[in-house]
Order: sequence, then structure tokens, then C-alpha cells
Amino acid sequence: MMNNFELYIENYLNNQRDCLITDAMRYALEGGKRFRPRVIFSILKGMNIDEAIGYDAALALELIQTYSLIHDDLPAMDNDDFRRGKPSLHKAFKEDIAILTGDQLLTNAFRVISESKVYNSDTKVNIINALSKYAGIDGMIYGQLLDVSSNPDSINPDLLFEIQDNKTGGLFKIASLIPMYINNDNNEDYYVKLGSLIGQIFQNQDDLFDLIKSKEEMGKDLSDLDNNKATALTLYSLEELKNIIDEEFKYLDEYLNNSSFNPVYLKELLIKLKER
Amino acid sequence: MMNNFELYIENYLNNQRDCLITDAMRYALEGGKRFRPRVIFSILKGMNIDEAIGYDAALALELIQTYSLIHDDLPAMDNDDFRRGKPSLHKAFKEDIAILTGDQLLTNAFRVISESKVYNSDTKVNIINALSKYAGIDGMIYGQLLDVSSNPDSINPDLLFEIQDNKTGGLFKIASLIPMYINNDNNEDYYVKLGSLIGQIFQNQDDLFDLIKSKEEMGKDLSDLDNNKATALTLYSLEELKNIIDEEFKYLDEYLNNSSFNPVYLKELLIKLKER
Repeated sequence: MMNNFELYIENYLNNQRDCLITDAMRYALEGGKRFRPRVIFSILKGMNIDEAIGYDAALALELIQTYSLIHDDLPAMDNDDFRRGKPSLHKAFKEDIAILTGDQLLTNAFRVISESKVYNSDTKVNIINALSKYAGIDGMIYGQLLDVSSNPDSINPDLLFEIQDNKTGGLFKIASLIPMYINNDNNEDYYVKLGSLIGQIFQNQDDLFDLIKSKEEMGKDLSDLDNNKATALTLYSLEELKNIIDEEFKYLDEYLNNSSFNPVYLKELLIKLKER
Repeated sequence: MMNNFELYIENYLNNQRDCLITDAMRYALEGGKRFRPRVIFSILKGMNIDEAIGYDAALALELIQTYSLIHDDLPAMDNDDFRRGKPSLHKAFKEDIAILTGDQLLTNAFRVISESKVYNSDTKVNIINALSKYAGIDGMIYGQLLDVSSNPDSINPDLLFEIQDNKTGGLFKIASLIPMYINNDNNEDYYVKLGSLIGQIFQNQDDLFDLIKSKEEMGKDLSDLDNNKATALTLYSLEELKNIIDEEFKYLDEYLNNSSFNPVYLKELLIKLKER
């Protein structure tokens, strides 16, 4: 059975203009694990706030996540032909449609927030600021820049952290900040670091799974090694990386014990991340 | 001498993170005619509002205009190698940097508004909504979709109007709406139609100049004919198009006489458009 957020996404798509870009948006959005939205919902639940209050913001974040995958998969970027268990968007549609659809998903993320009936104007501006800051040059796009400029010879632990903390951490910082803004909390440093910690674990696990799992299990091309990209496994052995991840999980668990929300739901989600 | 808006853009760029994407943003922003910002300033002046009040919003619009040119010039799109009087961004930098820089310009447009010290939250949300609506699937991106799907055999006057009204008209609708929101005016239909009329003339003149001016005079590749794109000149002779533009100028002049702002400054700007 579809959960409510999937129904909400479906409803959103059904209300978009009937055209090829909407078809492409639907194709690209299908099959996502919605992990970043679930971070939002888990924190909200720990604040005793209904997850549905987070749907508009979670959709905006999922639209941005999806655009970044589309543009990242393009021939001039990672040139990945397989994503979310099926051909990448530029293979299923054409490359020009993939560029336009990525642009539209990014543009629409901000429209969704601006038209939300759930948040007041101040909250909308805060969410839009977090999205544009950490999905941009203070987050994901900066991480992408470092990533396309990196190679296994130039990598070191500090640079690897900086890539991960921006490229992957950027959207998790947004996922942490959204409940904070919705709840009118203001401990920004705490939530930004929380997002950073989750992103770090997520990316290290992704690098680990790239090595030990198959393309079919992961649902995407595992191109980083082919593309001569620096990953955690450029620096660490498999065993070292597993130990690093274990340490990171322990640190995050303790960090969450100092949260102002009930961390039990987020901890449950993170266990699923570990076991995925 | 640089005018104040150019100094403001320069100052904005100087405050960006020092990295390759900022270099690329600077390169791409240089040499623009700032016509859409000047529409904003002319309307504001007619409302007796200092043009500097419009700088944040005008910058956001110029960032979106510039991103659209970068992505539009990519090999998978129009494949144009020449723009704003110099090599296109993907020729001067690499294609992956061009994709990322376009994404960053679009993302930053929304950040500029969210961080503005000039507008209140309600105005910010209104401006962001206009940007995301008319630069997206209800404007520019929809026009791009129609454009990449069009060819001279399928074109007719209605479709040509729809392409122009979305692709070019989209950003001019935003330029018209921004002063309306800043001035807390609410005659939205009037301003949307105003943007549509300006966009129509602008695009028809662009098609005309593509035929009668050189690449050097226009500062960009004139690729529409090479790319088998439908333009006004697919449907009309040179003389017919000149007559259409004259009629459109007359209609716009009368339309402006019914504005709630003093239209003299916008009329002055439009005369420059005619004589460029």
C-alpha cells in the first residue's frame, strides 16, 4: 500500500501541466527511497508534529534531490545510464528534456514552498533560504564542484570530508533545518551539524555499498570508480571504512541524546539506513 | 562609467565564495544588456520608487535570465558557441561547469530574495512565486519545451505566439510583476499582460535582427535558422514582420496610457528597444 507521502506526490504530479516535462518529472520521481523526506518526518514526529505538516517542504527537497540526480547523470557529468532501478532520464527521454526537467524540478521546489497553504510567510522564507543555501554554493553544488575537480591522487581525509559534507550533507542539513523552522526552534548550529552527521554516514555507506553490492541491488550505475572519482574507499580499506561508519553511528546516537526533540523516531530510521 | 546596478552586481559577485563557479558566474553575467532589470527600474520610477529598491529582485531575474542562456547554449540544446559577445560558457569553461553554473545561478536567484534586507516576508514570497511560476512550467521552461519540440513545418501563428509568450514573455511578466509587488499594487492581470506585450515585441525584434544584423552586432550565434527552429520569419516576410512590430508598439503605447503608474520612463526604454 502506498503511504500518504507517495499519494501526496502522486496528487502533486496529477495537478501539473499535462506535457512531456511532467511525464519526465513523474518518471524521475518514481522509485526514490524518500530518505531525506523521512528524516524530516522522523524529526517532526519527535517534536510531536504531524508528518503531513512537513509534506510541502519534503516535496521541495525531494524535487531538488531528483533534479540533482538528473543533472549529475548527464553525459557531461557522471554519464550514468541507470538510476532508481531503470534507465536514467536522458536515456529514457532525450538529453535536452533531461536538462529542462532538472531545471523545472529545481524551479518548482521554490514554487511549492511559495504556494504552500501550511507555512506562514516567515517560515516559507526560512525554508527557501535553507534550500537555496545548502542545495547551492554552501552545500550540494559546491560539493559537486569539488567532486568533478577531484581525483584519487589529490584526495586526502580533509578534502573527502569537505566533498561529502557539501555534496551529500547539504540536503541532509536542509532536512534537519526544515523541522526546526516549522517548530519555530532556533538552535540552528545543532540542526546543521545533525544534517552533516547523517550525510556523512549516508555517503560512507553509499561508498561501501558501491563496492559490496551489485548495480541491481543499488538500482543505479556504480560509476565512481570508472569515473576515477575519489571516494572513501580511495583512502580506506573495506574494514577501515566499516569501522569508521560504526564510530559515526555511535557518535550520532550520542549527539541525538542531546536533541530538544524525542530522537527515538530518527534513531529507528537510521537503523534502517544501516540495514538497507 | 558603470551605473549603480552594475556596481551592485559587481559587489554581489565579490561576496560570493571564491571558486570556479563564481568565476564562471562572473563570466556569464558580464556583457548582458540588463534589459529586464531596466523594465523593473522604469516601472518603479513611474511609481515614484527609487530603482535601488528593485536591485535585489532585478538581480534575481538577471541570474535566471543568465542561467537560461547557459543551459540553452549547451550542445544538447541549441549548441551555440557564442553569447554576449564572447564564447559561450561551456566553450570558455567546460560543459560540466556550465551545467553546474546554470544550476547555481537559478538556485541563487531564490537565495538573493530570501536574504534581501529590502523586502518583507510577504513581498519575498510573492516575488519568489512569480519567479518560480513564470520562469518555470507556466512560462520560460514551457516555452523552451514547445521550442525544442517545434519545427518550421508544424508552426502556425497560435503556436508561435504560445512559444514567444512563454519562452520570452515569461521573464518579462516577472519584470512587470516585481514592481507591482514592491508597490503593494494588486492589478495582476494588467501587469501580466504588460509583460506579455513587451516580451512579444522583444522576441519579434530579436527574430528580425537575427536576419538583418550580423553575429557580431548581436553578440551571439544566430542559430535558430540553422537549428531548423520556427521563428516569426518562418511565418512572415520581413516587411510583414516590421509591420507587426509597428502595430505591437502602437498597441503597447495605448495600453501603457491606462497604467496606474507614470508610463513615461518605460516608454523611453521601449523606444531604445526599437532603436537598438
